[in-house]
Amino acid sequence: MSTPQEARFDVLGIGNAIVDVLANVTEEFLIKHDLVKGSMRLIDEVEAHELYEALGPSVEMSGGSAANTIAGLASFGRRAAFIGKVRNDQLGEVFAHDIRSLGVHFNTPPATEGPSTARCLVMITPDGERTMNTWLGAAQNLNPDDVDEALVADSAIIYLEGYLWDPPHAKDAFRKAARIAREAGRKVALTLSDSFCVDRHRESFLELIENQVDILFANEAEIKALYQVPTFDEAMHAIKAHCPLAVLTRSAAGSVVVEGDDVHVIEAYPVRKVVDATGAGDLFAAGFLAGYSEGRPVAECARLGALAAAEIIQQVGARSIRPFHEIARENGF
Amino acid sequence: MSTPQEARFDVLGIGNAIVDVLANVTEEFLIKHDLVKGSMRLIDEVEAHELYEALGPSVEMSGGSAANTIAGLASFGRRAAFIGKVRNDQLGEVFAHDIRSLGVHFNTPPATEGPSTARCLVMITPDGERTMNTWLGAAQNLNPDDVDEALVADSAIIYLEGYLWDPPHAKDAFRKAARIAREAGRKVALTLSDSFCVDRHRESFLELIENQVDILFANEAEIKALYQVPTFDEAMHAIKAHCPLAVLTRSAAGSVVVEGDDVHVIEAYPVRKVVDATGAGDLFAAGFLAGYSEGRPVAECARLGALAAAEIIQQVGARSIRPFHEIARENGF
Repeated sequence: MSTPQEARFDVLGIGNAIVDVLANVTEEFLIKHDLVKGSMRLIDEVEAHELYEALGPSVEMSGGSAANTIAGLASFGRRAAFIGKVRNDQLGEVFAHDIRSLGVHFNTPPATEGPSTARCLVMITPDGERTMNTWLGAAQNLNPDDVDEALVADSAIIYLEGYLWDPPHAKDAFRKAARIAREAGRKVALTLSDSFCVDRHRESFLELIENQVDILFANEAEIKALYQVPTFDEAMHAIKAHCPLAVLTRSAAGSVVVEGDDVHVIEAYPVRKVVDATGAGDLFAAGFLAGYSEGRPVAECARLGALAAAEIIQQVGARSIRPFHEIARENGF
Repeated sequence: MSTPQEARFDVLGIGNAIVDVLANVTEEFLIKHDLVKGSMRLIDEVEAHELYEALGPSVEMSGGSAANTIAGLASFGRRAAFIGKVRNDQLGEVFAHDIRSLGVHFNTPPATEGPSTARCLVMITPDGERTMNTWLGAAQNLNPDDVDEALVADSAIIYLEGYLWDPPHAKDAFRKAARIAREAGRKVALTLSDSFCVDRHRESFLELIENQVDILFANEAEIKALYQVPTFDEAMHAIKAHCPLAVLTRSAAGSVVVEGDDVHVIEAYPVRKVVDATGAGDLFAAGFLAGYSEGRPVAECARLGALAAAEIIQQVGARSIRPFHEIARENGF
């Protein structure tokens, strides 16, 4: 491993390429359809159609956890790239258009056969919470061949989403990317995505974190699920021994950055009204990595993350219309 | 012509089945792409793709002028139906889902070949004005066979959008529907849609209005274009002689209802901030027809129209998330 050259991209995200279908629902709707509020669940195409039929009018916009983060990074003015699989269909075009129009490098060849572009039914209750049911479609067919070696080697940080641990070929794609990144002297960041996802893949996540992850993103539920401990403090102590930099978010209670023996506690930004919590964690990671790739101290990175998260939950959807670099400047960054 | 029986539907709309693609743009963007702010223009598939490429991130939601009106009527609690052509593709599914989820009867068979579902690129400038570029796709292939005779005869009012005057088969579909409706003793309503559309089809609109239209909807620019007169007053006098009921909207200056010798002048509802003017005219018509089909006096119908228009321009897109019957009740209707 030699000293890495200056990278062409600040961050390369690898994740599910998904179009979000957003609809307002009542609490009763969730109960009737046996849905756990605030969770993300994988469903098959049949169920996706049935649930869609039951939903009221919807709005469609590009989404996907790591893709939201990458879109956020571009909006912060950072050089960003994305690898993810769509099909050559209408929603696939929409996905590619939206991410490219932000200036993100996106070149994964779309599938020409097989399932259509992935979609996520995002059900927003009156309190702004979102409950997600995802049909992964083409996204789950991401495979190691889609991982462009030169692109990985030319990105200062690769950012992987835990959700991609579900489909088998995607996991191989992930491992390939992590290996290339480390060989090129780049950093590997991982987000745990969701506590059920952690439950499904605890052992392999732990192994990955101990051996290959430089920066871990997790919320309170996820980090507790990872170590199967009842308190946040215990989880914080556990991660300290395993990962050089952990960014732990706690919703309105702010965030904690654990960097070796240093622990930084950062407050959340004030929010007038939560409209839709979709993307809060994704945009926290975007703000953090934007600051990190500019060489800012980690506490300042977390404040940028908190700012981006606060901004996004006051809008519908996980992509901000106003550029984050403007919002950051207005807030003194 | 016998006395009509009670109709199964209050209003049947016939129009373009379109998915709207909404994006924010600057004034400079419009100038650079030679677009006239506030206008609607038809484009071909090649241009639709080029313009889409140039646009920033977008949000997709169901639209189409008459379809918006019909969705609004359902939201007011009226019994509504729609005829319009989509393709059997993803955006076609989205369109059908959204309109059906509101309780609208929609049963036009989707095309199984030919151009894909229509889309309208809605560019929103910072002042909330929208500039529209529409690729009609499958919608323009609406033909007389798609007009279900029993459905037309069983609707108290049929509502036709002027935009459908462009494609040749759709015009025939229109004429067929108007003929069936009149034979069944039903009412025919027409919206002029846009002043360029009026310029393209002045003669046939005038003929249709004089012979077959019971209720005409037009804004100030459209009615002046129809009669090629410089002032609103002249246009108002001209329409009085040709159509039993004309509903003329003037944006912030309110609306005027001309019913034979009676002229009612109605104020606009106060608006805090115009977010996106998309759908103002469509929802005015929805409110008016909702009241009309309940047997309310025409001035009260216009006030319901003004309320719905004011509500929709304070949201993004032309479909309201909150039901209009609730909004109407809160406002004393």
